[in-house]
Amino acid sequence: MDLWIEHVTLLDGSRGHIGISGNRITHVGPDAPDGTAARTIDGTDRLALPGLVNAHTHAAMTLFRGYGDDMPLRPWLEERIWPAEAKLTDEDVYWGTRLACAEMIRTGTTLFNDMYWKVPNAVRAIQDAGLRGTVSAGLISGGFMGDLKGEMRELIAMYEDGEFGDRIRLAISPHALYTVTPDDLEWCAQLATDHDLPIQIHLSETLREVEECVEEYGLRPAFHLERHGILDRPTTLAHGVWLDREELAMLATHPATVVHNPVSNLKLACGQGRDVRGWFDYPGAKEAGVNVALATDGTASNTNLDMFEEMKFASLMAKHASGDPTCMPAAETVEIATRGGADGMGWVDAGRLEPGALADLVLLDLTEPTLTPMHDPASHAAYAANGQCVHTTICDGRILMEGGEIEGYPEVRARAIEAARRVTGDGA
Amino acid sequence: MDLWIEHVTLLDGSRGHIGISGNRITHVGPDAPDGTAARTIDGTDRLALPGLVNAHTHAAMTLFRGYGDDMPLRPWLEERIWPAEAKLTDEDVYWGTRLACAEMIRTGTTLFNDMYWKVPNAVRAIQDAGLRGTVSAGLISGGFMGDLKGEMRELIAMYEDGEFGDRIRLAISPHALYTVTPDDLEWCAQLATDHDLPIQIHLSETLREVEECVEEYGLRPAFHLERHGILDRPTTLAHGVWLDREELAMLATHPATVVHNPVSNLKLACGQGRDVRGWFDYPGAKEAGVNVALATDGTASNTNLDMFEEMKFASLMAKHASGDPTCMPAAETVEIATRGGADGMGWVDAGRLEPGALADLVLLDLTEPTLTPMHDPASHAAYAANGQCVHTTICDGRILMEGGEIEGYPEVRARAIEAARRVTGDGA
Repeated sequence: MDLWIEHVTLLDGSRGHIGISGNRITHVGPDAPDGTAARTIDGTDRLALPGLVNAHTHAAMTLFRGYGDDMPLRPWLEERIWPAEAKLTDEDVYWGTRLACAEMIRTGTTLFNDMYWKVPNAVRAIQDAGLRGTVSAGLISGGFMGDLKGEMRELIAMYEDGEFGDRIRLAISPHALYTVTPDDLEWCAQLATDHDLPIQIHLSETLREVEECVEEYGLRPAFHLERHGILDRPTTLAHGVWLDREELAMLATHPATVVHNPVSNLKLACGQGRDVRGWFDYPGAKEAGVNVALATDGTASNTNLDMFEEMKFASLMAKHASGDPTCMPAAETVEIATRGGADGMGWVDAGRLEPGALADLVLLDLTEPTLTPMHDPASHAAYAANGQCVHTTICDGRILMEGGEIEGYPEVRARAIEAARRVTGDGA
Repeated sequence: MDLWIEHVTLLDGSRGHIGISGNRITHVGPDAPDGTAARTIDGTDRLALPGLVNAHTHAAMTLFRGYGDDMPLRPWLEERIWPAEAKLTDEDVYWGTRLACAEMIRTGTTLFNDMYWKVPNAVRAIQDAGLRGTVSAGLISGGFMGDLKGEMRELIAMYEDGEFGDRIRLAISPHALYTVTPDDLEWCAQLATDHDLPIQIHLSETLREVEECVEEYGLRPAFHLERHGILDRPTTLAHGVWLDREELAMLATHPATVVHNPVSNLKLACGQGRDVRGWFDYPGAKEAGVNVALATDGTASNTNLDMFEEMKFASLMAKHASGDPTCMPAAETVEIATRGGADGMGWVDAGRLEPGALADLVLLDLTEPTLTPMHDPASHAAYAANGQCVHTTICDGRILMEGGEIEGYPEVRARAIEAARRVTGDGA
């Protein structure tokens, strides 16, 4: 045994021990098998959870944290984000992604689903940080962003050559149906099929997207994706604010996951409609049997990557939007933020704290006043804790943080600040 | 000078120094006056904010954190909260309030507006913890909870005898219009007038409350309070989910503050109506010129007392409910969570970081990945930070926490856990 965490509180409220050998969990429970471990951690006053899974983000955008908050979408993109993004170098994407990884390690996320550009730099950052992730380059049709299809083919070659390592996988990402032509959607579906890769795409984030899709193609967005083959692949669909029950019922017949991004949707007021307020229909998705995951989106439209905060927003908004205080209870919320994301991304042995699973887990510090007393561990995780209550983060069997300390972080911080200053031109 | 915080980042993005003498801020700015300080703090990589103001809470309910989450309101009250509350001793209220104070110190709140029972124990807890607060006993008509009016008179005597000390004030709290008769509302208004005290009351939390008020009294809730003299006194009105524009316009003509409790309102699905979703009408309150404050409510309906989290929920829900991503911008949100609450509670020299103000302030740790890089300090405070990003908490000129350490906390934690176990009968 490589690592033994003893006397730790588990999600069901019991106390037990966790054993880890290599990158796998080998034991969870009250009994202690014979033998010794290379390293023992005292789990007293700690609550163990599976590492959280952030199923949709744009990691390198940490460089734009708080850069142009409280602005309407178009001026924010045109005056702030796009000009800054145009200046991003390979090294900027590397340090921005490293900063995102540091924040995820600090706040208990061990697996994430990334979509951005200059992806080989993100791969290198995730490798160096020690996290687990699926990366993808966002395809936008029209060619004004360079040869994105060529970049995607190069990524596939790198991936198939084994250059990503065991902790990183590749997905194909058509950016969204309003930025990608039907032909290019089909090109992506074919590419994903040919190389047995999953797909990630933005879907139904705004009412305008839905209305324009219906007007142009005569179909609501999910059916448009179905027509062009996207849903034949395992697919993560980010947002889903405006999906209706017919779309949800159809999605349940495909290997599709809706990735809910509550903070981003609120911050950008994506639920804005003429006479209605839109919100992701969680009770509808659950009833239809659609897999649901949770995500922060990029920091630019959230301001952080804290999946604990995201769980609270998701559950409380589900209660508000449904008018039912029992909707999306705490334990279900934790499931969505762990197994839901891992399953949706095809990492079916991650996101669970059980023998045989990948050794990705976090320990919360129960001595925090915020976590005292403890009547219900799931309620603590979903409603009381925030990311800074994480004491220990373990990914792939390796301890990436203990007591808030992350190896190499001072350099990551300094280089990320330098990059943010250069591309935005402000004090940062 | 007693305390000198040098090279600290201020909310406007500038760097400067803060001087404190006794319990007052004497200097804020880039220049450094002559003389030496008894103690100097290095403010490098720290963001200074006024201490946050939690304008409506039931502090001792920390003992019930997560006890019966995800339950409908009536069974939650009848099966969980009321039976446990019936067992609370004086000591339980003391340790529950001490735990709340520890959590507030940890997460950057220095002033709070409390409503509960066995109030002399809360007074003692706040005195011992070093925080600032206004306390009140909630009056419920009918006499089944004992001689509450007698307790209120005793509290007034203690207060007027100077037993509360300088950091604690008293308010008169009729619990709500559905638990207090019109005669008792008038009795409260008269008592507050006779002793020159402010009032705190719950108002318009649910649609049912509004409909029953209209049916029984022929008036919407705010007008009912006006008729019975409550609004003649400086009053904090907790919730206000269902206040309409006519009520808001009327409130603006009185010394009244609406205290917004977004997390509690979402968690209990207080916006539930037959065909409509209710939400506090922030744009309406702003347009009418009503003072607005922010609060967590008790932990039982929130699960923590983190005012940073509350700021994010308030601002993001304002954007969602109004359909406008520019609604309640970050700097305005910070104002509401500091000066708005202090002014509403009549602590007009608290809640601001300026010369002459009470020395209540917090320093955020900008080295946290979550707070890196920093393009906009207000956005950091409102959207990126959580309470655990607070490094230093100062109240009344005294350092109550540095680097997460709070004096006396291990005993507070142990005694609070003991009390929680006894009154709930579970593992806690």
